[in-house]
Amino acid sequence: MIPRTIAREGEVIVFIDQTLLPGRLETVRCTDVERLATAIRRLEVRGAPALGIAGAYGVALAAMQSEAGEMEGFLAGIADAAEYLRATRPTAVNLGWGIDRVLAAAGAAETVENAKEAAVAEADRIAAEDEATCRAIGRHGAALIPDGARVLTHCNAGALACSTWGTALGVVRSAVEAGKKVSVTACETRPLLQGARLTAFELAEDKIPVRVITDSTAAFLMRKGEIDCVVVGADRITRDAVFNKIGTYMHAVCAKHHGIPFYVAAPLSTFDPVLSEAEVEIEERGEEEIAIFNGKRTVREGVRCTTYAFDATPLDLVTGIITEQGVLRPPFDPMPGPRNI
Amino acid sequence: MIPRTIAREGEVIVFIDQTLLPGRLETVRCTDVERLATAIRRLEVRGAPALGIAGAYGVALAAMQSEAGEMEGFLAGIADAAEYLRATRPTAVNLGWGIDRVLAAAGAAETVENAKEAAVAEADRIAAEDEATCRAIGRHGAALIPDGARVLTHCNAGALACSTWGTALGVVRSAVEAGKKVSVTACETRPLLQGARLTAFELAEDKIPVRVITDSTAAFLMRKGEIDCVVVGADRITRDAVFNKIGTYMHAVCAKHHGIPFYVAAPLSTFDPVLSEAEVEIEERGEEEIAIFNGKRTVREGVRCTTYAFDATPLDLVTGIITEQGVLRPPFDPMPGPRNI
Repeated sequence: MIPRTIAREGEVIVFIDQTLLPGRLETVRCTDVERLATAIRRLEVRGAPALGIAGAYGVALAAMQSEAGEMEGFLAGIADAAEYLRATRPTAVNLGWGIDRVLAAAGAAETVENAKEAAVAEADRIAAEDEATCRAIGRHGAALIPDGARVLTHCNAGALACSTWGTALGVVRSAVEAGKKVSVTACETRPLLQGARLTAFELAEDKIPVRVITDSTAAFLMRKGEIDCVVVGADRITRDAVFNKIGTYMHAVCAKHHGIPFYVAAPLSTFDPVLSEAEVEIEERGEEEIAIFNGKRTVREGVRCTTYAFDATPLDLVTGIITEQGVLRPPFDPMPGPRNI
Repeated sequence: MIPRTIAREGEVIVFIDQTLLPGRLETVRCTDVERLATAIRRLEVRGAPALGIAGAYGVALAAMQSEAGEMEGFLAGIADAAEYLRATRPTAVNLGWGIDRVLAAAGAAETVENAKEAAVAEADRIAAEDEATCRAIGRHGAALIPDGARVLTHCNAGALACSTWGTALGVVRSAVEAGKKVSVTACETRPLLQGARLTAFELAEDKIPVRVITDSTAAFLMRKGEIDCVVVGADRITRDAVFNKIGTYMHAVCAKHHGIPFYVAAPLSTFDPVLSEAEVEIEERGEEEIAIFNGKRTVREGVRCTTYAFDATPLDLVTGIITEQGVLRPPFDPMPGPRNI
């Protein structure tokens, strides 16, 4: 097992720099909000549940470092830090959820000292809950995975996307723990190769059979009868769509075409009870993520690249959503939300 | 316009080394069959029609260089060269078609001198026919492309896949030549990025609007209503399926799901009247094509990668096949073949 993706040691936030994987497994010791925001923006820390923890620890860090003498200045300071962190990535709902939980905990206190303690305690609680949540998702999901199943996954919804265990890969780990033989086909996930770099890495570390394919090979393997089910994570689940790494929608369409179950594994903190698909901003990232690969230009200078980080899969393509409280089935109505459960 | 992809200058075959694009446009002057076979294996020359020309010129090269005094030894020598060339890549039918045409032309001669002349003349004819064929495909295909169309393509079925003009991109070029406004979305085409490196390059050279996306973004753009039709090339068309670059099948499934026309543009030399889908060998290439990019390992050492170079799209997902003789429509029965037209 790899170390925790993100954790607190006193006034230091320690996280794995995932941009260095699979070549090097290195941790960064982060002592300020700006460095943490940079880590989120650069995807050193990524994955919806991990972003929830990172957002929470970011606000806790601001709280611990605040020099304000009274609550008004203290709360204004951590609110500034919160907005700075929130702006790093627009699509994953967990980031704002983690931030808001810590803000609320601090805001409920009456003294600055109590507020600091409350902020740190709430952030620690979010991190601890994450493991319990992933284990519960794993248990519920494992029941859906037949013995011998060949699971397709996209991007990384594993230990590296959470504090540990994972959501989609938590389902795989729990199925293996329950004695089932499961193998995983990991889509490499262009442009940033989270599947090739991270999913293959963490499954190989755990000795779970895994192979890597290009994203566009998945449909053909479905046609060849080599995929039994698809399990992916989510960055946001609205009442009408699952937002997840770009490419997820394509897998859902192709799974439907082949009659293959398509599961989404995500904690309730990923649910958005407010917005609908059309209202969610899909992050577009820099063109160089497609145009330049490991220092080498692969697209002629001056040609435009379109780089959506996520796509939206309508719920009618989803067989089930695996949460820590059980498996939701169509017609998914009413949908739970992090605030109304 | 870029120079011809592959051409003959006396006893030298001159081709663009496509592995260097888009960074450098360089030609290789090739004087022996082994170097040409290496070029085919390394994908310095690629694309079904271009492989037909390369195979033809390979046999012509062997013929020109033969020192045999009588026909028996001469024909045995060029047959050896032919088999050596044929073994380089198993899926594209055009390679063997070009080889066989030159072998047949040489075999019909009565003297070695005449056979050499016949081989060279036949190879030159194949190269010249290719341009006329692509222009005819372009004309027939352009009629299918609405003014203002946003065309999705995969891999490179352009000038660089033929001698010039292209098949799928020939359709685009002919539509533009006919005065239509057409823009192209080029899927980058992992793992070797022919779409990013070659298609974007050659369209930008011709000032045809083009943007690059990751392969897995295509379905989402279809959902967003940003794609009007798909046009791809083919490496082999059997009576039941279109073999083309891995990823083509996924686009066909997603186009069907969205009610978007899916066209295949290919010369009749790409048709295989003999085999059916199940009998065609799909080339698997080295794992390092996925696992290592520009010297950097993206997949943990020891993790398996599956690297199909092609996939098969059943004909029921195909709206039309654009050939030099016109557009074939479902139910595609009987299918033409290079030998029975």
